[in-house]
Amino acid sequence: MSMMDSQQDITIRPATSADCDEILRLIIELAVYEKLEDQVKMTADVLRKDCFGDKPLFYCIVAEPSQKDSSQLVGYALYFSIYSTWEGASLYLEDIYVTPAYRTRGIGKQLLKHVTQAALDMGCSRLQLSVLGWNKSAKDFYTRYGYVDLTEKEDWHVMRMQRKAMEEYVKNV
Amino acid sequence: MSMMDSQQDITIRPATSADCDEILRLIIELAVYEKLEDQVKMTADVLRKDCFGDKPLFYCIVAEPSQKDSSQLVGYALYFSIYSTWEGASLYLEDIYVTPAYRTRGIGKQLLKHVTQAALDMGCSRLQLSVLGWNKSAKDFYTRYGYVDLTEKEDWHVMRMQRKAMEEYVKNV
Repeated sequence: MSMMDSQQDITIRPATSADCDEILRLIIELAVYEKLEDQVKMTADVLRKDCFGDKPLFYCIVAEPSQKDSSQLVGYALYFSIYSTWEGASLYLEDIYVTPAYRTRGIGKQLLKHVTQAALDMGCSRLQLSVLGWNKSAKDFYTRYGYVDLTEKEDWHVMRMQRKAMEEYVKNV
Repeated sequence: MSMMDSQQDITIRPATSADCDEILRLIIELAVYEKLEDQVKMTADVLRKDCFGDKPLFYCIVAEPSQKDSSQLVGYALYFSIYSTWEGASLYLEDIYVTPAYRTRGIGKQLLKHVTQAALDMGCSRLQLSVLGWNKSAKDFYTRYGYVDLTEKEDWHVMRMQRKAMEEYVKNV
């Protein structure tokens, strides 16, 4: 079966409110793969509110088998606008994931193509994402398509404050 | 002069459209300090459109001397919403900067307090930023207040694709 044939089984489309339980299932699958699943506090209701409520906080596209013999999604990509004071409007790809049984069929590449096209359509100068250093296959994939590792090249480190530390800071400064 | 007295000379307030030339001057000052000024493609007009146009892409606050003997700003912080699939709504601090002549007066801490309060008011779980590994004084400052270096702790790397590579990708995949 050629790559083309296998891709015809999969539809990539914008997520809808009804997809949020399935998207959460895939978010957890990805977190388990990243060995950081204890950090997942998300619920399907919060996803629904944050993507389809009054003030959408992100965009999401999903991959599903075209023959609807199952309601299961097999992949998703979730992204949002960010801003660079050096280059202006940019896009951040928070998650991109394809479930193991559907890999090597080009679905990840197609999801990334949709996100990249969205970034171009929005006039973005940059498309950014974060990857775990030990995830060599992911790093190699991105590098092959022209992503630069800014942590290696320019020594950028990601710093994070959690809510409890935020509350302490505003109380004490 | 006590910290309190010196702070009374400075007002921290939301940026206005009229501040954009001054903000750009400070953006460039910061980029020069970071030894990456060749990457700055920004103009005051783009800043104005992106913060005060139909679709604001970021928030900005500025620090200015209370006695308006000068129209110069002495610091700024620029931030925007991001999203975590594990913890939901979060805030990203793109830039925080105080011009050298006004340092050690607590202005940076006050700017960061405003941003942190904004994050709490927006219900954010996380406040994130990026720092250059060699910028030890900045790293120490953030660490002292509860920021965790996720690049060191969990091996997260920042990857970036520029527009030219994006155009190639959508053409070839």
